[in-house]
Amino acid sequence: MISPVDQRTWLVSESPFNPFKLHHTETIFTVGNGFMGVRGTFEEGYSGALATTLVHGIFNHAEGDLVPDLVNLPNPLPVQIWVDGELFHLNAGKVIGFRRTLDLKRAVLTREVLWRTSQGLVVKLTFERFASLADEHILVQRVRVRALLGSPQIEIRSTVDAKVTNLGTQHLTDVQTSLTGAEILVTARTTQSGYGIAVCAAHSLSLETPAQSDSEQVCYTFALPQENEISLTKVSAIYTTRQSDQPAAAAQKAAHAALAKGYEMLFAAHCAAWEQYWHTSDVQIEGDEVAQRAVRFTTYHVLIAAPRHDERVSIGAKTLSGFGYKGHVFWDTELFMLPLLIVTQPKLARNLLMYRYHNLQGARNKARANGYEGAMFPWESTDTGEETTPQWSHPQPDGTRIRIWTGDNEQHISTDIAYAVLQYWRWTGDDEFLVKYGAEIVLDTAVFWGSRAEYNAEYDRYELRRQIGPDEYHENVNNSAFTNSMVRWHLQQALAVRDWLLIHHRHAGQALLTRLNITEERCAKWAEIAAKMYIPRDPEAGVLEQFEGFFQLERLDLTHWQPRVANMDWILGHQRAQRTMVIKQADIVMLMALLGDQFGTLEERQANWDFYYPLVDHGSSLSPSTHAWVAARLGLLEEAYKLFIYAANIDLEDLKGNVSDGIHAAACGGVWQAIAFGFAGLCLDERGELQVQPNLPSHWRSLTLRAYHRGQLKTIRLTAQD
Amino acid sequence: MISPVDQRTWLVSESPFNPFKLHHTETIFTVGNGFMGVRGTFEEGYSGALATTLVHGIFNHAEGDLVPDLVNLPNPLPVQIWVDGELFHLNAGKVIGFRRTLDLKRAVLTREVLWRTSQGLVVKLTFERFASLADEHILVQRVRVRALLGSPQIEIRSTVDAKVTNLGTQHLTDVQTSLTGAEILVTARTTQSGYGIAVCAAHSLSLETPAQSDSEQVCYTFALPQENEISLTKVSAIYTTRQSDQPAAAAQKAAHAALAKGYEMLFAAHCAAWEQYWHTSDVQIEGDEVAQRAVRFTTYHVLIAAPRHDERVSIGAKTLSGFGYKGHVFWDTELFMLPLLIVTQPKLARNLLMYRYHNLQGARNKARANGYEGAMFPWESTDTGEETTPQWSHPQPDGTRIRIWTGDNEQHISTDIAYAVLQYWRWTGDDEFLVKYGAEIVLDTAVFWGSRAEYNAEYDRYELRRQIGPDEYHENVNNSAFTNSMVRWHLQQALAVRDWLLIHHRHAGQALLTRLNITEERCAKWAEIAAKMYIPRDPEAGVLEQFEGFFQLERLDLTHWQPRVANMDWILGHQRAQRTMVIKQADIVMLMALLGDQFGTLEERQANWDFYYPLVDHGSSLSPSTHAWVAARLGLLEEAYKLFIYAANIDLEDLKGNVSDGIHAAACGGVWQAIAFGFAGLCLDERGELQVQPNLPSHWRSLTLRAYHRGQLKTIRLTAQD
Repeated sequence: MISPVDQRTWLVSESPFNPFKLHHTETIFTVGNGFMGVRGTFEEGYSGALATTLVHGIFNHAEGDLVPDLVNLPNPLPVQIWVDGELFHLNAGKVIGFRRTLDLKRAVLTREVLWRTSQGLVVKLTFERFASLADEHILVQRVRVRALLGSPQIEIRSTVDAKVTNLGTQHLTDVQTSLTGAEILVTARTTQSGYGIAVCAAHSLSLETPAQSDSEQVCYTFALPQENEISLTKVSAIYTTRQSDQPAAAAQKAAHAALAKGYEMLFAAHCAAWEQYWHTSDVQIEGDEVAQRAVRFTTYHVLIAAPRHDERVSIGAKTLSGFGYKGHVFWDTELFMLPLLIVTQPKLARNLLMYRYHNLQGARNKARANGYEGAMFPWESTDTGEETTPQWSHPQPDGTRIRIWTGDNEQHISTDIAYAVLQYWRWTGDDEFLVKYGAEIVLDTAVFWGSRAEYNAEYDRYELRRQIGPDEYHENVNNSAFTNSMVRWHLQQALAVRDWLLIHHRHAGQALLTRLNITEERCAKWAEIAAKMYIPRDPEAGVLEQFEGFFQLERLDLTHWQPRVANMDWILGHQRAQRTMVIKQADIVMLMALLGDQFGTLEERQANWDFYYPLVDHGSSLSPSTHAWVAARLGLLEEAYKLFIYAANIDLEDLKGNVSDGIHAAACGGVWQAIAFGFAGLCLDERGELQVQPNLPSHWRSLTLRAYHRGQLKTIRLTAQD
Repeated sequence: MISPVDQRTWLVSESPFNPFKLHHTETIFTVGNGFMGVRGTFEEGYSGALATTLVHGIFNHAEGDLVPDLVNLPNPLPVQIWVDGELFHLNAGKVIGFRRTLDLKRAVLTREVLWRTSQGLVVKLTFERFASLADEHILVQRVRVRALLGSPQIEIRSTVDAKVTNLGTQHLTDVQTSLTGAEILVTARTTQSGYGIAVCAAHSLSLETPAQSDSEQVCYTFALPQENEISLTKVSAIYTTRQSDQPAAAAQKAAHAALAKGYEMLFAAHCAAWEQYWHTSDVQIEGDEVAQRAVRFTTYHVLIAAPRHDERVSIGAKTLSGFGYKGHVFWDTELFMLPLLIVTQPKLARNLLMYRYHNLQGARNKARANGYEGAMFPWESTDTGEETTPQWSHPQPDGTRIRIWTGDNEQHISTDIAYAVLQYWRWTGDDEFLVKYGAEIVLDTAVFWGSRAEYNAEYDRYELRRQIGPDEYHENVNNSAFTNSMVRWHLQQALAVRDWLLIHHRHAGQALLTRLNITEERCAKWAEIAAKMYIPRDPEAGVLEQFEGFFQLERLDLTHWQPRVANMDWILGHQRAQRTMVIKQADIVMLMALLGDQFGTLEERQANWDFYYPLVDHGSSLSPSTHAWVAARLGLLEEAYKLFIYAANIDLEDLKGNVSDGIHAAACGGVWQAIAFGFAGLCLDERGELQVQPNLPSHWRSLTLRAYHRGQLKTIRLTAQD
């Protein structure tokens, strides 16, 4: 018998159906496998439902739109059921039972509905679905119909819905649907980017009833005696021209092959693959059901979004679970999601870093366009690697548009990526990756900073003006302590990487340095910039000033502003927020998280925490987990736990009120970081050896996690006594 | 630092506000103190809100109604707040933060709201309330207003709302409101029963601002500078003519005295009283947060409903938390709520049994009216002890009314009460109670059964025809195995009580027997009835037949009817349900729970469980906990836990969909029984000694509970190893 606590901490359930949370539950019940993501939309549809089928890399820039969208593909889910002529729908007849459960362990979504028709017949409908982790092109569905009361005539109609848009934006053209027997094939092409797409759905019914197909749907009609059950298996294969020159043929072949295996065998292979995932990525917390379930939920959502076999795509801020941020990739991936993967799924981490490598050209284009050298990564990135941040917001209620500056000035993204490359290298010891790919990222972004830093002759110092740090409430500030510190660190690391290359991989290293034109002079300049980078601080208290002039802003006491859902930026208005010390997320706390002991002494870190913590609004979902991590390191366990549990429940409890747009993937990854780097104190020492410095919440009886270190899988089990 | 798990298991929270659960949360956030119950209605009101202020014993039979209602008293809660002229309401301005928390440990309800006016001002409003356990006439409220953004003009208006009804039924007359300074007095009288009622609300503001009162409300107006806070304390005293000849004077005096103590001192005294309650009634479960919180929640709701100083009232099926069942008292009290009190709060248990003693006359009247002797307790009971079960339902959609038979034929209530008396006596050793009061109940209800049993000469056996057992899906059945078995047991116990009286309290015993006319002949008849009581059973399998003919009914396989909210009775229709084996709750399982080992051998109990368990619909909220208890005793731990956790969440998760009517108090008590009598196996052996026979769910690390046994408080701590 599995313990009920184990069950509860692996399951996320909804019962009864709550139509007012339709979009929230669609998001959290997303299934995926690193290739596709399918929201938890009902098979039979529901008014206002946002059926969303996203695959990595299929972007399209629709005419009239400012930026590209990750394209919503034809929806493979629809299955409609008539019971004695009455169409099953949650708003028809009477729903006398409803339970929807996402089994995180086996990554399968199940919905059970007891439905009574207006004629008094009762059927039990069971819907199962999973995006196969064993074959990433395959979405498997099973629909079971059982006659509980009465012996109705049943009609089942299955379709692939090609009438899909991205919230109204049409990205598909040349849409064709064809039927052969019990198989539906939909092909289409994206309007601007020209990707070919094919979705093929094959069907098998547990009865010997031939499918009757009309132009767009597969139909089955049969009598179902009371207490009998039938099941329909629907296997949908998705291919695009990113995987195959002939996606239609590939999809058909894959759907055939999968259907031939049958539901049970497909499910077994899927579960076996998930067992592998959880073997290394599961975190076990004894003594805290809420934390245990939440960390499994957050880990699940990072894992279902991480590409397995494609190194030219990355994970968008909302994964493949919704339309938020249009599927674009931000620093969220490198600084929040990636560490979980570096430590527990290093192959997946490598794929994500390769995405940045393959997109270096886009970063170089952006640098050139802005008058700089090297590689300047885009704040928002899609399939091309070009900057895709919109310059203007959608019109506000008063008709005006707001200028969005992040694409111009949130330049720390380039250093965040370099940070991730080095973190990956240190944990994995994957020298080959560094030599062939990673070093080029680290060095060419350093080239960018070398050209970007501004010398201020008056003070004999280097500066960075018009930056945006993590705290986006304050835009276009001068000398962001976060950015300047990270750039200093970046240039130092670049010099160290250069030295390492020349010592350990002289030939390849020399070639790279030549190709990137990294001369002695350039290196000397980097060293000078690093040495003379201006980092504003209060000399007495040792507190960094978030940016020049921050200490002069109006201070607002946030102590009593709890509980609060709305952001202070919204409440105060953006203009006033800019003039106050209220911060979206604390740049300085983020800096402490990234630099650890290198930030400064314990006293300095404590002083900076004490100053900045009361100012933080957590207006970004990225904020609480980072603060939890740092608080745990400072031994502030009560605060750390509060922040951690908030981060862990952002999506489950919709604490930001916008889960409808998709999962807060950075928060998900951040939860793992708060546990691993915060509470467990997992880190690499100066020699690169694995260390733990646990500071566990006192009510946790134990914490167990796994970490790959230089290819070796270690199990770290910490108990309350540690 | 209190462990977050401890915090979570003592708190029930709502965040954000969910208007679709308005009535559910009103019920679960009820505060009370054994005298009054006040639903969790908002101070400022809300469309459709069911503000309910109930005190024990104030029933009224309105003209035109079939039966009396527990009367909704004038509502002491209303406090309205204007911020720069804008009336605070959850549907006005913008709610930018909302959290409502019931602290079970301290029995205080707190609501925090961040509210932004349409003008952009932001205030934080904090509402606290508790029904003082230290002075049961007192409801204490505190409302705090803090200016977060802006320095608004604040106006506060407090009233006592006398325009209250019971879902439209008017029970009050002579309603008068008077104001003196910052004090509101409402007096009224119930229309039929003539109870006098007084509610007096006294106020104190933390500012030196004089109250401006108009005819019905106390008003304060003042400017509130940004980052300042004021607080209003409102103390309402409730008295009725059941407590005082002059309820108005008593209420005024009590409100004055309480207000003079101030919020903090009132709260401290309240918390101290609750510490006493929890000292004996708290159950601690390590290793299961869900169970831990649920059992605290269910225990809280029994404790806030249990009268402390009044032995002429009892707890209705929905406590003082809603209008369901009109406040009437059923067997729920004796067989579901009472055991928790007998074992952990014996004084409160005694009060409830005294209610039945004082109402013996009503029971005797019912027996006479039906042509029987002795005391025949009413199925539904109010203040008079007369039968108050309605004979007919409200009109159905088709205009017809359904005959309600429980008042006529659910006669086992008389034995249930006798069972409770004896259970109390065995656990407490309170001989004085038995001699003076309890024995009269046990014996006079035995007199009833002696006159009620029907001799069937053909089979030389005694029978009971036209009965309703716990399974109310089957009405007016002949020879209910539950009822007949319990009556046999009852008559045997009555004879034993008689013998005990004559040995240990000869004088008083003889007087009682004489007064009740319990002669030797009568006793001989009881012995004969007990010996010859017909209990239908399948002789081969050893399975009791729930009633004559049950084995011939249609059998429906309920295996696949999950998840289900609607009852089978509703789905099938009452007529068809009567013809099937689907049962609301299992009579035979209830019998096993009550009789324990006396029911039969382990094999017999297992056989009866195996037969009846698959048939049970749990159409009553009383069912799951009883089944959990019996399953635990049979060592069926997986099933037992599932049933237990279902029972434990009935109200928290609104599993029956009708928590709006009030708390399922029997389920609450049943949860404690499932733990104490089921998992812990707490029982008294033949010599009356305390025994434990634990069968803990395997994931529970420990279970700790307390039990009074013969006046001694015992701590029982069981661990997984036991």
